Amino acid sequence: MKVVFIGSGLQTRRRAPVVVQSPDDELVEIVGSEEAPPKGFIEQYGCAWGSDWRAAVTRADVDAVAVCTPPHLHAEMSIAALEAGKHVLCEKPLCRTLEEAEAMLAAARKAKRVLKCGFNHRHHPAVLEARRRFEQGDFGRPIAGRCRYGICGRPGYENEWRADPARAAGGQFAEQGVHAIDLFRWFLGDLAEVSCMTSIGYFHKQTLDDNGMALFRSADGALASLHSSLTHWKNLFSFEIMGEDGYFSIEGLGASYGTERLSVGKRDFSAPFQDHVIEYRGGDSSWQSEWREFKAAIAENREPLGGGADGLEAVRATLAAYNAEATGSVVQIRNFKP
Amino acid sequence: MKVVFIGSGLQTRRRAPVVVQSPDDELVEIVGSEEAPPKGFIEQYGCAWGSDWRAAVTRADVDAVAVCTPPHLHAEMSIAALEAGKHVLCEKPLCRTLEEAEAMLAAARKAKRVLKCGFNHRHHPAVLEARRRFEQGDFGRPIAGRCRYGICGRPGYENEWRADPARAAGGQFAEQGVHAIDLFRWFLGDLAEVSCMTSIGYFHKQTLDDNGMALFRSADGALASLHSSLTHWKNLFSFEIMGEDGYFSIEGLGASYGTERLSVGKRDFSAPFQDHVIEYRGGDSSWQSEWREFKAAIAENREPLGGGADGLEAVRATLAAYNAEATGSVVQIRNFKP
Amino acid sequence: MKVVFIGSGLQTRRRAPVVVQSPDDELVEIVGSEEAPPKGFIEQYGCAWGSDWRAAVTRADVDAVAVCTPPHLHAEMSIAALEAGKHVLCEKPLCRTLEEAEAMLAAARKAKRVLKCGFNHRHHPAVLEARRRFEQGDFGRPIAGRCRYGICGRPGYENEWRADPARAAGGQFAEQGVHAIDLFRWFLGDLAEVSCMTSIGYFHKQTLDDNGMALFRSADGALASLHSSLTHWKNLFSFEIMGEDGYFSIEGLGASYGTERLSVGKRDFSAPFQDHVIEYRGGDSSWQSEWREFKAAIAENREPLGGGADGLEAVRATLAAYNAEATGSVVQIRNFKP
Amino acid sequence: MKVVFIGSGLQTRRRAPVVVQSPDDELVEIVGSEEAPPKGFIEQYGCAWGSDWRAAVTRADVDAVAVCTPPHLHAEMSIAALEAGKHVLCEKPLCRTLEEAEAMLAAARKAKRVLKCGFNHRHHPAVLEARRRFEQGDFGRPIAGRCRYGICGRPGYENEWRADPARAAGGQFAEQGVHAIDLFRWFLGDLAEVSCMTSIGYFHKQTLDDNGMALFRSADGALASLHSSLTHWKNLFSFEIMGEDGYFSIEGLGASYGTERLSVGKRDFSAPFQDHVIEYRGGDSSWQSEWREFKAAIAENREPLGGGADGLEAVRATLAAYNAEATGSVVQIRNFKP
Repeated sequence: MKVVFIGSGLQTRRRAPVVVQSPDDELVEIVGSEEAPPKGFIEQYGCAWGSDWRAAVTRADVDAVAVCTPPHLHAEMSIAALEAGKHVLCEKPLCRTLEEAEAMLAAARKAKRVLKCGFNHRHHPAVLEARRRFEQGDFGRPIAGRCRYGICGRPGYENEWRADPARAAGGQFAEQGVHAIDLFRWFLGDLAEVSCMTSIGYFHKQTLDDNGMALFRSADGALASLHSSLTHWKNLFSFEIMGEDGYFSIEGLGASYGTERLSVGKRDFSAPFQDHVIEYRGGDSSWQSEWREFKAAIAENREPLGGGADGLEAVRATLAAYNAEATGSVVQIRNFKP
Repeated sequence: MKVVFIGSGLQTRRRAPVVVQSPDDELVEIVGSEEAPPKGFIEQYGCAWGSDWRAAVTRADVDAVAVCTPPHLHAEMSIAALEAGKHVLCEKPLCRTLEEAEAMLAAARKAKRVLKCGFNHRHHPAVLEARRRFEQGDFGRPIAGRCRYGICGRPGYENEWRADPARAAGGQFAEQGVHAIDLFRWFLGDLAEVSCMTSIGYFHKQTLDDNGMALFRSADGALASLHSSLTHWKNLFSFEIMGEDGYFSIEGLGASYGTERLSVGKRDFSAPFQDHVIEYRGGDSSWQSEWREFKAAIAENREPLGGGADGLEAVRATLAAYNAEATGSVVQIRNFKP
Repeated sequence: MKVVFIGSGLQTRRRAPVVVQSPDDELVEIVGSEEAPPKGFIEQYGCAWGSDWRAAVTRADVDAVAVCTPPHLHAEMSIAALEAGKHVLCEKPLCRTLEEAEAMLAAARKAKRVLKCGFNHRHHPAVLEARRRFEQGDFGRPIAGRCRYGICGRPGYENEWRADPARAAGGQFAEQGVHAIDLFRWFLGDLAEVSCMTSIGYFHKQTLDDNGMALFRSADGALASLHSSLTHWKNLFSFEIMGEDGYFSIEGLGASYGTERLSVGKRDFSAPFQDHVIEYRGGDSSWQSEWREFKAAIAENREPLGGGADGLEAVRATLAAYNAEATGSVVQIRNFKP
Repeated sequence: MKVVFIGSGLQTRRRAPVVVQSPDDELVEIVGSEEAPPKGFIEQYGCAWGSDWRAAVTRADVDAVAVCTPPHLHAEMSIAALEAGKHVLCEKPLCRTLEEAEAMLAAARKAKRVLKCGFNHRHHPAVLEARRRFEQGDFGRPIAGRCRYGICGRPGYENEWRADPARAAGGQFAEQGVHAIDLFRWFLGDLAEVSCMTSIGYFHKQTLDDNGMALFRSADGALASLHSSLTHWKNLFSFEIMGEDGYFSIEGLGASYGTERLSVGKRDFSAPFQDHVIEYRGGDSSWQSEWREFKAAIAENREPLGGGADGLEAVRATLAAYNAEATGSVVQIRNFKP
């Protein structure tokens, strides 16, 4: 496939090398908002630099577009690319409103193209292995889930697009928390209701939450709690599911989150506590794995893992959570329309 | 001091040896609901067995009473003991209603006696050390707290008093969660609002929640999340506070929760992640430490750590949480009256 | 069984409660070197105090004797007890010389009584479970073993019997290391050769080694390394065996060594690293387990796990190690006679 | 600097990117033993491919040579490069004999060029931080050290140059163990004596040891134990030093060894056990750090950390260890000449 990237930030730096190293793909152009690329930036990818994204996504030779811009641009860019007949991998959160999400899905349906949301967490090896064991029934019906997802913010955070309500899809609750919401949906099924509290605990020079907590109840009655934090002075990713028959917990995502580790155990009222622990040492392989899934979905003409519909539902749950806080109530997610 | 225990269950087995080994205390009587004590039970404590708790708490030679019965009996027994001029250490939760709690506090005030609630978690060495560092400002203003408190339930759980709504103070959310609520109050100050979701995930033969999750917001704006679970197939106690300048986390309580461990760290945007880790190996010393505090409060004629008023506020927050779930809303705790 | 203990130190305090709580055993007498017992000491065991060990071990009503004195007394006391027809559980190291050891074994054979050496480490649950898996072939032929066994010494250590060459069986290398030697023998089989280096690293006011390291080669060609240290400022017990097909490692012994934990894994050249981890939380159960084995061996008229012959071989390996250091050579253990 | 690499194996793949990314260095040529480079190999470095190492190391425009070939070629290549006036970074072990090592050092002295041995372990951030604390006296005089260094071998290992006595510098004991020997020398000072045992535990189709254990005594009386293993089915790097006043331990090296972690603690006879733990998450930075040191030594015209003399002494200790095993004795290292 010939691939165009829109955006020249962190996510492009993470995702573009995967395409470069993929034997049957070619990264043909990166589009940035600057007139010229940062020094040395383009050389490492061996591709062209563009500053006109509309021109890039309508290139006749291009098969797929990776949208790695801030959220306020996701819908417009993705829809243009889909309408031009390109497959789209769009960063998470899919977009900022349900209207945008629905328009994106409609465009994908109409164009018969794959729209994937950049939920790379589904593609972490510990998550994939947990899912495999989940599907074979190792944990039984899920009872509860927890996600603690925290990162140490940075001086000058208030100047980033992430701190700009005009560009971001929400505060830290939405920004990182949407991964957890997507994973909860994957393991617990439809999320039925939510309550939420957010705060600005440290980064007072901007207006978006730097901490958000939510409780969810799934349609099947499982509970889930989420804390997404930008004031977690030691980075942490911890995702846990307990079911009737067993449980798993995942800690780490590689890199600054430490070694990725899956622990699984069984309900056993008589034996000493025991876990089977799998370590995924080395770098973060989720970007490669996600790209393979994107390509497989295209080849097989099917919905990818973490596709557009999942992106839409995660946006819905996120907006419902913010609404729950605003209204001081538990909000029903399933038919939530802001 | 001469001490009477009411109750012959697990908590008496934990607390009575502390009194027996205390050089200037004497355990004079254990009162049980059975006519005769279990074989060998009384011998190890070298004390009398009684079956009339009213007689025991009014013994002229007795200084203090430990109330280790199910919650529905706490108020009546504690008030009788206080009215007889005895100091009272009453198991947590202090009682089942705010009316009961207020009557207990009034009795203590009137009798000028110490009423302590059995919040032994405040007396765990990791918690005490965290508190010491908290007071000296190591963590700065608190931003968020989390408690994950889970235990593996038992076959036959539905036949225990803990599963009986007529005797227990609530489900697992109240039973274990009240410790976390008390700790949140200690570190975050007054809790202002709460939302809550509970469920029966596994122990379906009874009607009380076996899982409960809550979110709290403190009067100072800190957030806190709690999950208390009876379906945590591997026992876990984890309590974390993050502040503007640093954080701590506590894991383990000794015994079936594993080695108690305090980790503390600082906010530092440039250094590698680092923690100072203190391990409290060996047995659970909280029972001794709590007893010493009870005695010190008596000797100094002051409120103990985790006294009656703390017990009342923890009951209030617990009831507010249940009310939040019942009403599908965020409940204001501070003036909550059911 | 009616049981006599000789010695009133730490090991009696650990072992005597096991006998007291054993439903079909009775602790009838503790013999100390003092005229009268320490205040309160005897009361907790509900037994008599004696100061004549010869009289005690020949009491007609006594079935078994636990020898919990310093090593220089082990042989004389054990032999007297065996000759009086008593079963003997003698603390480790079994004794100080091979001559003593052989005399003890001869006395047991002649009297047809059980002589067990106090190798309680074989009875730790993680060790027993590792052995069970070892016997069923989970690890394959052993290739190498390691033991790191360290404890933080104490001020005033130089005044203890352990620091007195006239009473101890050697320095820290012998004192704690003999447990490792016994475990190596259990898992690796006969130890064929040894080299050794010891030192006085910190406790200079006495003359026995406070650190000792040794390398062993088993008769089957496996290697093993041991470090026994009194200057391990953080207590550690770590015992590891790797075999052709898998490995196990044990960390912790409960109490001041932290939660006892067994990790097992398989050789797998293609999968991510993974361990099955079993935690034995709570107190140290080895004393109970060892006592049950002592009684079972008596009942079944057989050699116990960690019997007199094992005690002798561990003494032989220990003496061979000291000899290796003294001679600057690798010493053949199997027929070593000092 | 303009830099030539000799060798096209794993170490070049690790070290060459560092030079490519170094702003003031240029990788001009990689010399391999193959006629043509592996497909795609040279493109990523943007340099020339050569097959004549003698021509390459005498290029007039070249400043430094990295020798990343099997050990049997180190001396010849390094000496040729030094004689041509190039600075040399030579992989560990420096070479295979003391004669070779002395010739290499002589060549460096004569040419007044820097000769560095590729002891990248000194440049791991945990090691550097431990050394910093060591130098400021945090641990006091060293008492003992331990290194456990193990890796899971590979099917087909017997076909690698590492399994070929004509090319390797020894078995696994030498190959990985030499890093530990160098670190022991750095922290404990001169190593005075050694005993050693090696074995072939699993890789029987070749003749070099796959496991080696050694004991060392430093000139100052500290002890050290080393186990280097190719049958460590779960990769492990653990390096520990305990001193009179404190200790440190390092686990992990990043990548397949897991997150690199430094734990430090103090001798304290009364406090609970506590460690300060620093985690170096993310990739292995030692290659960058080592390269900076190489360049700094050149710029400052001084011996680098882990220079040629250190390489020579590590070879001496390794050969002494093998000699100790061969002679069944403790060997004096300091003046050891095979």
